[in-house]
Amino acid sequence: MKALRLNDRLELVSDASVPRRYGESLVAVTAAGICNTDLEIVKGYAGFLGIPGHEFVGVVAESPDASLEGKRVVGEINAGCGLCDLCAAGDPRHCSTRTVLGIKDRDGAFAEFLSLPSRNLIEVPKSITNEQAVFVEPLAAALGIRERVELDANSKIAVIGDGKLAQLIVRALVPSGCQLTMIGKHQEKLDLARGIAAGFILVNDTFIQRSAAGEVTLLNWGEERFDIVIEASGSETGLPLAIEIVKPRGVIVLKSTYHKGTLLYSAKLVVNEISLIGSRCGRFKPAIDLLASGSLDLSALISARFSLDDGLAAFEAARQSASLKVIIDVR
Amino acid sequence: MKALRLNDRLELVSDASVPRRYGESLVAVTAAGICNTDLEIVKGYAGFLGIPGHEFVGVVAESPDASLEGKRVVGEINAGCGLCDLCAAGDPRHCSTRTVLGIKDRDGAFAEFLSLPSRNLIEVPKSITNEQAVFVEPLAAALGIRERVELDANSKIAVIGDGKLAQLIVRALVPSGCQLTMIGKHQEKLDLARGIAAGFILVNDTFIQRSAAGEVTLLNWGEERFDIVIEASGSETGLPLAIEIVKPRGVIVLKSTYHKGTLLYSAKLVVNEISLIGSRCGRFKPAIDLLASGSLDLSALISARFSLDDGLAAFEAARQSASLKVIIDVR
Repeated sequence: MKALRLNDRLELVSDASVPRRYGESLVAVTAAGICNTDLEIVKGYAGFLGIPGHEFVGVVAESPDASLEGKRVVGEINAGCGLCDLCAAGDPRHCSTRTVLGIKDRDGAFAEFLSLPSRNLIEVPKSITNEQAVFVEPLAAALGIRERVELDANSKIAVIGDGKLAQLIVRALVPSGCQLTMIGKHQEKLDLARGIAAGFILVNDTFIQRSAAGEVTLLNWGEERFDIVIEASGSETGLPLAIEIVKPRGVIVLKSTYHKGTLLYSAKLVVNEISLIGSRCGRFKPAIDLLASGSLDLSALISARFSLDDGLAAFEAARQSASLKVIIDVR
Repeated sequence: MKALRLNDRLELVSDASVPRRYGESLVAVTAAGICNTDLEIVKGYAGFLGIPGHEFVGVVAESPDASLEGKRVVGEINAGCGLCDLCAAGDPRHCSTRTVLGIKDRDGAFAEFLSLPSRNLIEVPKSITNEQAVFVEPLAAALGIRERVELDANSKIAVIGDGKLAQLIVRALVPSGCQLTMIGKHQEKLDLARGIAAGFILVNDTFIQRSAAGEVTLLNWGEERFDIVIEASGSETGLPLAIEIVKPRGVIVLKSTYHKGTLLYSAKLVVNEISLIGSRCGRFKPAIDLLASGSLDLSALISARFSLDDGLAAFEAARQSASLKVIIDVR
């Protein structure tokens, strides 16, 4: 089958084996989204080799569960052993022997077919388009923040980053009623969140906000400390900034996975008693429910669509700093 | 008055001004302990200049509150503005304009006298010796972990470090009934915690435990992951080790304040959804109660005692890796 395969570099191949794993379902991929983690994987993050891709919608081609065949599905990306305490409790996200679609020991979605355990697959309601369904996985990851930190309408929250994950995070947090600030590097991306989050951009060492009418407001660290800062910039500069702007005993949520290390002055975490909370995958059901509610318009977050044949160009487009979500239409 | 004063280096001086701050109490210092933070301050940590020292017991010499005069006291080290919401709620530890005894904008305890607000002073019960009272501040900091993380008898806890803070931490956690492991570099220090915490030391890339009879057990990372890891080594190598040995969704408590940065691969925190929790000062009351209960024998944790005249030698002794608590007897 055709696929994008990572060996020493990412290549378009036509001789990849159709993945058939005993007892699992075979899914014909319809479309797949490129995530920053995919870009990092191509740079060497996680040491993954094979077919990347973990945000997808597809149709079940073959399954031990005949009732699944022909169903339009998305799939939770962590495939656990099925036996350990975590898996037995229905949450394989931290199973120590898990494989992860397109990330760890399991070929992913930038291919004509992928394989996942049937229990990982969730049917997509008719009201959700394929384009929207590609966002289920990253939207679930955004909603997963709610599993890791308590927040409410009184919470002052800053999201560092203005890219596709940050855009989903602010949208995912709107129902909580919290006060949202987005700190980014691209005015045109901050503008996409206008009305959802107050957007600030770095200009000459100062973070400023430009209103739609062009008026300028400064972000004042001294008074405007945040209860919760969510680091979703995908850059090693995000964490030091988060430490500066979170209040004492505040919480920093780390969402980005990137290859590089950050120089951390941990004494700052001790003195200000800051909590740094890692957050990775979320459950799919809340994301599907939110999309099905029709309250999210994600079309502005799609920068470009490419065919699988043009998959390498899709990656090139996704790497551009102005880019948001790039979708690969497989069939 | 006589004092140890830090300018470009630490010096013994006899011309320091007796500190008199309006509305505060003047305390004649009896004895003061040297903490790792003091050693870091002398290296440049926190940018402090003046008289260091924040672990002390003394006698109130002058006070606007006459009933305090002559009382033997210890003192909470954070002096808040008294006006902000935090101070009004009785907790100045994160007051943004606080001074901190011997650490921030306030001369400290390695001197004949120090000044603190009367509300910071707590009378020491007769059953607590001066030697024990010097431990109230660091023991409070150890007990402060309980404010920042939930633990119980089922919690598997590792403490990284075998120095004076780590020794207090394991002793402070004993009443919770949790299962304690101590990971250090000095067998003779690990032996001080025998019966309290299982002690492991690094030998040829492997952490081993030596029983009193000399039998050796290996610490197996794979299976022996910890619910909570407390980093109290005072070294930048502690955090990377903590990340390796904490279980997914586990908690790392950071206690050490040191001058250097650590290279953090934050993706590990994200993928394993680890929480990193900073913890600094605790309240004094629980520490005094624990000392007054008579259940703690801290005498083995005192390496040496020096007079204030020999204060520089005291610092030199505290810097030795075999050293635990060094006390300066002021009068």
